[in-house]
Amino acid sequence: MANPSRQAVNFAAPRGFATAFKADCKETFFPDDPFHEMKHEKPLNKLKKTIQYFIPLFEWLPNYNLSLFRYDLLAGITITSLAIPQGISYAKLANIPPIYGLYSSFIPPFVYAIFGSSKHLAVGTVAACSLLLSETVGAKASPQDDPTLYLHLIFTATFFTGIFQTALGFLRLGILVDFLSHSTITGFMGGTAIIICLQQLKGMLGLIHFTTHTDVVSVLGAVFRRRNEWRWESAVVGIIFLAFLQFTRYLRQKRPKLFWVSAIAPMVVVVVGCLFAFFAHAEKHGIQIVGELKKGLNPPSIQYLNFDPQYLPVTVRAGLITGLIAMAEGIAIGRSFAIMKSEQTDGNKEMIAFGFMNIIGSFTSCYLTTGIYILLDATIYEEYSDIFFLIFEFAGPFSKTAVNFNAGCRTAMSNVVMGFCMMLTLLFLAPLFRYTPLVALSAIIMSAMLGLINYDEMIHLFKVDKFDFVICMAAFLGVSFISMDVGLMLSVGLALLRALLYVARPAACKLGKIPNSSLYRDTEQYPGSTPIQGVLVLQLGSPIYFANSTYIRERVLRYIKEEQGVSDSKTEIIEHLLLDLSGVSSIDMTGIETFLELRRILDSKGIKLSIVNPRIEVLEKMTLAKFTDAIGKESFYLSIEDAVQNCRFSLHSSKTTMEESLNDQNVV
Amino acid sequence: MANPSRQAVNFAAPRGFATAFKADCKETFFPDDPFHEMKHEKPLNKLKKTIQYFIPLFEWLPNYNLSLFRYDLLAGITITSLAIPQGISYAKLANIPPIYGLYSSFIPPFVYAIFGSSKHLAVGTVAACSLLLSETVGAKASPQDDPTLYLHLIFTATFFTGIFQTALGFLRLGILVDFLSHSTITGFMGGTAIIICLQQLKGMLGLIHFTTHTDVVSVLGAVFRRRNEWRWESAVVGIIFLAFLQFTRYLRQKRPKLFWVSAIAPMVVVVVGCLFAFFAHAEKHGIQIVGELKKGLNPPSIQYLNFDPQYLPVTVRAGLITGLIAMAEGIAIGRSFAIMKSEQTDGNKEMIAFGFMNIIGSFTSCYLTTGIYILLDATIYEEYSDIFFLIFEFAGPFSKTAVNFNAGCRTAMSNVVMGFCMMLTLLFLAPLFRYTPLVALSAIIMSAMLGLINYDEMIHLFKVDKFDFVICMAAFLGVSFISMDVGLMLSVGLALLRALLYVARPAACKLGKIPNSSLYRDTEQYPGSTPIQGVLVLQLGSPIYFANSTYIRERVLRYIKEEQGVSDSKTEIIEHLLLDLSGVSSIDMTGIETFLELRRILDSKGIKLSIVNPRIEVLEKMTLAKFTDAIGKESFYLSIEDAVQNCRFSLHSSKTTMEESLNDQNVV
Repeated sequence: MANPSRQAVNFAAPRGFATAFKADCKETFFPDDPFHEMKHEKPLNKLKKTIQYFIPLFEWLPNYNLSLFRYDLLAGITITSLAIPQGISYAKLANIPPIYGLYSSFIPPFVYAIFGSSKHLAVGTVAACSLLLSETVGAKASPQDDPTLYLHLIFTATFFTGIFQTALGFLRLGILVDFLSHSTITGFMGGTAIIICLQQLKGMLGLIHFTTHTDVVSVLGAVFRRRNEWRWESAVVGIIFLAFLQFTRYLRQKRPKLFWVSAIAPMVVVVVGCLFAFFAHAEKHGIQIVGELKKGLNPPSIQYLNFDPQYLPVTVRAGLITGLIAMAEGIAIGRSFAIMKSEQTDGNKEMIAFGFMNIIGSFTSCYLTTGIYILLDATIYEEYSDIFFLIFEFAGPFSKTAVNFNAGCRTAMSNVVMGFCMMLTLLFLAPLFRYTPLVALSAIIMSAMLGLINYDEMIHLFKVDKFDFVICMAAFLGVSFISMDVGLMLSVGLALLRALLYVARPAACKLGKIPNSSLYRDTEQYPGSTPIQGVLVLQLGSPIYFANSTYIRERVLRYIKEEQGVSDSKTEIIEHLLLDLSGVSSIDMTGIETFLELRRILDSKGIKLSIVNPRIEVLEKMTLAKFTDAIGKESFYLSIEDAVQNCRFSLHSSKTTMEESLNDQNVV
Repeated sequence: MANPSRQAVNFAAPRGFATAFKADCKETFFPDDPFHEMKHEKPLNKLKKTIQYFIPLFEWLPNYNLSLFRYDLLAGITITSLAIPQGISYAKLANIPPIYGLYSSFIPPFVYAIFGSSKHLAVGTVAACSLLLSETVGAKASPQDDPTLYLHLIFTATFFTGIFQTALGFLRLGILVDFLSHSTITGFMGGTAIIICLQQLKGMLGLIHFTTHTDVVSVLGAVFRRRNEWRWESAVVGIIFLAFLQFTRYLRQKRPKLFWVSAIAPMVVVVVGCLFAFFAHAEKHGIQIVGELKKGLNPPSIQYLNFDPQYLPVTVRAGLITGLIAMAEGIAIGRSFAIMKSEQTDGNKEMIAFGFMNIIGSFTSCYLTTGIYILLDATIYEEYSDIFFLIFEFAGPFSKTAVNFNAGCRTAMSNVVMGFCMMLTLLFLAPLFRYTPLVALSAIIMSAMLGLINYDEMIHLFKVDKFDFVICMAAFLGVSFISMDVGLMLSVGLALLRALLYVARPAACKLGKIPNSSLYRDTEQYPGSTPIQGVLVLQLGSPIYFANSTYIRERVLRYIKEEQGVSDSKTEIIEHLLLDLSGVSSIDMTGIETFLELRRILDSKGIKLSIVNPRIEVLEKMTLAKFTDAIGKESFYLSIEDAVQNCRFSLHSSKTTMEESLNDQNVV
């Protein structure tokens, strides 16, 4: 038993480069294996499935029937009643005429109905991207001085967003979105909410002049410098609306069944505001109104796309940043819903749908749109509140509203219904909204944004992970005090830095044997575990590569030094070093060279190096780099227990060891 | 035995933030535990050790004696004979008067003798950094049109290099150097060698006009456009010298004992060149000579440091890049030697010594210096050739020379000897070198650089790791065809990208039981391993955090889907999912939330989630984030075998399972 017939390590020939490369690419770009359904089909069926894969319309339309339509009609109308106040409000936030907000809720839903794969997603404009667009484009063209140029640049930026999203989708780079961490998004949303709320002080106080900057200091400065412009009438109306909206939110929290009250509240505010402004001649009392809204459908805007080299850097940049953010949100939502319905959505395919939506939108007087949540019944919402909190809030006025799951849309048809409803609105009802007081819009936006500052989550982050909290604060403070893109980049940069630190310092630990078992565990975590005389067992973290190979070498040598420092007697000297590589999933050239070097150093100290349970990728490279030959195949073990038994057998101080191993037999 | 008295997972209370933070900082910044010797000392001894730690001079000087001095004298003189041709050559490469190359070998060795801790390091100028300086600073100030300004900017850049190195050392950011991978360095050195060699065509062909660009295309263009300036006399002399130098290198490779021939070859070339130029009046035959070299020691240059905002960006940038490269090299050398002598050198402390060396150097008319290798006997060199190859070559003219280990310097005193020898040279011999033909210097540089293009290593990289090869080629081609800093950044960027991909896609695998053992191993790697009915065991890679949490979720769900897709019978359905976290060394908030989400999805599918062997860092955060409570402490297992036994016990299809577990008892 001291030298048992051990389990052999599998030294299969390394896979060819093509095989390994294909496997790596698949894991990197197709982790969700989108084509798995088509593998075992006949050619004709395969073609059909492929077309259905790329244009999901063909998948759901053939099975569509009137009974489904009843649900979609209800859902579509509900969404429209939410999309109108949202469209007008966010267009104001983007500094473009409000009618473009309504245009943006007409064409894109039709496009998504054709190319989009999620059944649970509606499309519309979002607050953060609206402000981001106005901040980025506004730096180059003033919306006040040259509104036409500004509008055209907004269209151009939307076009680039679409191109960027489509390209990323086709290149399957959805992986980029993975780099926006939960903490970054929490901080970014909180910061955005703060600055958007402050922006609304303009509308609430009825200011005429305002700053183009978005940071807290500039905005507060502008508000307080213009105290002579403050209008109490405007402020009073605004506070009443805001109080009403906040009350409906409160009501929904207390009585989830009354969620529909907060769902229709924004529309109520708009209608009440219009009536009030019309009958009270609010304009004469310092309450500004939206002003003329032309009847009619989207005019074409493809001729307005502006590719002047002078403006190109700004529009491309705006397109990139808003594209990434809109995408992150869209994919996150798509996936969350898919989980609930046990249905998987391909994020990269969604991205292509969003891209088409924005490209076609930019041709038809729409500005940036993306997927916003749609339906969820109240009970599910409560249970999943942690996950959905952000998504809901991000969707702005839609926030914390929920359409009953059973009464909700079952297919993408609800987007079609929404599009038709919006068409009717544009054709017949648009002029009615001319009396909407700006202060009502400000109240709607503020109410939505106030919920976005997720204190609980920030406190939670602080408690559980300090570094995550710092990442979150970088985004929060960066967005609030510098600008949205700087805040975002700062936070992503910090998150990447941490990712690199993770791999630069992979935790290694010393293992000891847990009594009465063949298990070896971290001696720090399990103080009961006992070291093995003459054998040092170390577990290395993953991956091993250039950025941590020096560290690993130093760390291993330090363990040996510490171990030998503890004991004074000659017999306690380490004669075997076992490296447990079970957890090491990858290694590079520098890593392997470190092992070679380590072996030389150990040789000079008279310590024998053995490797335990290397994984296939690691073993492949070790074989290719001739490390396997250098230390000999007999130095590879499948389990620590095997390795320890063998080491003990060969230990110089054989007498005591033999006794021990005899004792051990009884245990095992 | 079906539900054995299992080993418990240790749910110790999470460590406090301060403890965890301290431990993390220690691993990140003090992996080599530099103060370990001082821990158990008395206060007075502690103070003494601390002073000795910061100023190693006090450590070795008290024990110094005359018998040691004999070795140091020999070593010091040898180094000097190598430093003179090197100093003159590299100063020409940096486009500054040759005398500054000699100055740079006088003051810095003294500084290093005081603050440096490695006994096996000499200091001097290096080729890559010299060219890098001239490339970066030359872009802003022309060495031909305004040599004074150019020289002052070089001093200023050296000053910033020193400041940067000192700061990094004090902040213990030696970790930065870890991000220069072996592949990056191989490619960078190769590319640098190519462009430095091509630069030497100017000297070899006796050209007067030349380009300031360093890329291959510009340089070859400049050489061939100036065909009318080519001087055959110069070329013939150059080729003779080059052939001689290459022959001594060849000799050293064939007969390691004759290493001293190649060691003194550059000095021989300089002396022969001087004599030849003097007696043959070479200047009249188109062979340019170095020209006047003033007698005397370094003049002060502190008053010339130029902090004009116009030049600041260039000097700071040059300082940063050269600092990083010089440092990487210095630390690599320091550590390699320390390993051989089983003595550990603290890289960060070395960096401070280099920093002081450059700051003081910039005050005393020296330009950038760093640690270059010093001694090694021929046999060791041969054995360690892989490791030392780069280091040696990088050191330029010193390359492939080796001073016998036994006759070599034992203390930093050899640097002092070298300083004194250089002082004597400056005071008395400098004017003699005025006749050195430029073509001799070019031959010395070319010979050193030719060995730098490490074809074997590149082929090796190509065979073992394609991505490493790409990283290497990015540096090689980037340096050759664009510029040194762009090439370096390109390569480092690619290496970082790979590091991020490593952590974005940590390899997960399905485990099966190896027959007749309690081991669970990758089913792909060990085809003999068998799955367990109703239980899916997955091993997750490390770390788990925001950039890979989505991937991990999708991957786990895909494994379940694949598993259930294989079997048609109802009995084969998965009822337990075991996640083996042994290899997961860290996790962040997003990662934990992914686990929470995964649990909800699995619950809805009727699958029970259990965790096997989480490490202390992971368990801490799971407890803080209440994940432990959510799935229950009874779902944590110490080993897969325990977990599987428990799962089998609770499986619905209890009949067949009971039988199996009975069979299993016999095995275990």
